[in-house]
Amino acid sequence: MTGTGRPPALVAVDWGTSSARAYLMSGEDVVVGSRSAPVGVSRAAGGPGSDERRAWFAAAFDDLCGGWLADQPSLPVLACGMVGSAQGWVEAPYRPLPADLTDLSAADLTTVRAGGGEVHIVSGLVKSDGLAGVMRGEETQVLAVLGSPEAYDVVLPGTHSKWVRAEGSVVGDFTTFLTGEVFALLAGDSILAALAEPPVSPAWDAFDRGVRVAAGPEGRTGPLGTVFSARALVLTGSLQGREVLDYLSGLLVGAELVAARDHWLQGPPRPLLCVGDADLSARYCRAARLVGWPDAAVHPDAAPTGLWRTAVAAGLVPVPHAPAATPHDADGDET
Amino acid sequence: MTGTGRPPALVAVDWGTSSARAYLMSGEDVVVGSRSAPVGVSRAAGGPGSDERRAWFAAAFDDLCGGWLADQPSLPVLACGMVGSAQGWVEAPYRPLPADLTDLSAADLTTVRAGGGEVHIVSGLVKSDGLAGVMRGEETQVLAVLGSPEAYDVVLPGTHSKWVRAEGSVVGDFTTFLTGEVFALLAGDSILAALAEPPVSPAWDAFDRGVRVAAGPEGRTGPLGTVFSARALVLTGSLQGREVLDYLSGLLVGAELVAARDHWLQGPPRPLLCVGDADLSARYCRAARLVGWPDAAVHPDAAPTGLWRTAVAAGLVPVPHAPAATPHDADGDET
Repeated sequence: MTGTGRPPALVAVDWGTSSARAYLMSGEDVVVGSRSAPVGVSRAAGGPGSDERRAWFAAAFDDLCGGWLADQPSLPVLACGMVGSAQGWVEAPYRPLPADLTDLSAADLTTVRAGGGEVHIVSGLVKSDGLAGVMRGEETQVLAVLGSPEAYDVVLPGTHSKWVRAEGSVVGDFTTFLTGEVFALLAGDSILAALAEPPVSPAWDAFDRGVRVAAGPEGRTGPLGTVFSARALVLTGSLQGREVLDYLSGLLVGAELVAARDHWLQGPPRPLLCVGDADLSARYCRAARLVGWPDAAVHPDAAPTGLWRTAVAAGLVPVPHAPAATPHDADGDET
Repeated sequence: MTGTGRPPALVAVDWGTSSARAYLMSGEDVVVGSRSAPVGVSRAAGGPGSDERRAWFAAAFDDLCGGWLADQPSLPVLACGMVGSAQGWVEAPYRPLPADLTDLSAADLTTVRAGGGEVHIVSGLVKSDGLAGVMRGEETQVLAVLGSPEAYDVVLPGTHSKWVRAEGSVVGDFTTFLTGEVFALLAGDSILAALAEPPVSPAWDAFDRGVRVAAGPEGRTGPLGTVFSARALVLTGSLQGREVLDYLSGLLVGAELVAARDHWLQGPPRPLLCVGDADLSARYCRAARLVGWPDAAVHPDAAPTGLWRTAVAAGLVPVPHAPAATPHDADGDET
């Protein structure tokens, strides 16, 4: 889909804990402008739910998207992520599972006034059966990759990795691994950090070694039982300081993948689709191939596509025409 | 053993990362004086191996034990723990496994001059087969509980929990779980901490709930896969803020125990002996009973007994008489 020349039809905002990214879109995969700012929810002023906080978000939104909206005040605006949490601009509810991401009721978007217009915020998802879980933002990224004819296992690596099980556009289950946050805590301020030196470039041998430990007999005690080896191996001279962090990364990513493979998947691994940050996803792909996935691929930048599809489902932008590749469509001017 | 009236025969020092505890001992279980100070290895001045650091340790030792030694300059002094690490007073080697804790060669004690006398430092243990591991200090505590006619599974709960496998006084294997440090990091500075309120007293129901999750089907993905529930359960109203930390503690202690039970023990659980801090050990005992140990008990304050037995093995104090309960012995004056 080219879409060149098509007029903007949506302002889409992926607004998370540490930053916000806004996209001016004219089609499902057509981003004609983008901006980002370090105005994540964790930076907001004022207490949760206060007038001060609402004013802070309104100002941050105006800085980020005001220029686009000054040109086209009628553009619909759709946002996802922690902006809809209790610490965000306005609290959006959670949708219970199973949730059809393309079947939205009025309750699935929460609206806040901004300048002369409105910002619609996508609901998160909540899982109550089994181990409780919540997500905000990932559900929108997931919509960018679901419904593909190919069958994938889907993971969204990150501070809080999410594994999602879906049929078509219906999310039936998900689970969360705190891998990224535990890595950051251990790498930043633990006895393991004391012996670590920042690597100049990724020490892939050390990463692979960590993955293999996690997937091997020594990994059966899980990450609590393996990570101290990052210290012991340095003290015994068989790991270098500059390898510590990548070895630790391999232990933790490997532990997540093995746990997901053995206790989350409902059959043998299918190709793994890693949705999210390219560098982190590359680690997951590499580790997945080491521990038995037949293939692994990265789908970066899923948020704008997912926001577009959500906007279509909500009627904020026109429903796309049926799949067609007429000469006219190929021009991409009006479809 | 009463020992009342027996003269002091050993100055024993358990010198760790955050503090040092010194004991004036007149028999294996007879502590006639004790002192502690926040002079752990992590507080030492000067770079590792520097004259400044050695002087800092000498001064800290003199503050702690100088009074006892002024009265009896010939008392032998034995220390264990991180004081023998590269960051400590003097670096003591690691003994390889298997290691008979009562069969010490000259290389198993490292000696440093202090004032007019000497301080002997116990070697740590190193495990090279399988997943590498090291310990310093725990080997000495272990000596206090080994050789018992009853068969135990032995754990030393702590920042870095150690599980030890031994026959008689010979340590054949051990492993380390980073449970305590991971708990402290998550409780102190993570997304889970954000919703936690300090409990007034332990929320045992929440702790038990965490242990049961760790030991149940939802716990199979391991701690990385369960800890986010401490947040989700609060957001969905089924866990209180003041319960978060004990629930998290239950998840992590439970994960350690289940992993040890299934992948470290070499048979069904025997009574669990928790060696170390009484409050933390009480948690381990409680959780152990929940996940299938037939019984669990705490052995606090093992360091002085272990240091005494090490001193006997090293010839620093007289070898005790053969077990006897003669009227003379019962007086405890001279045995």
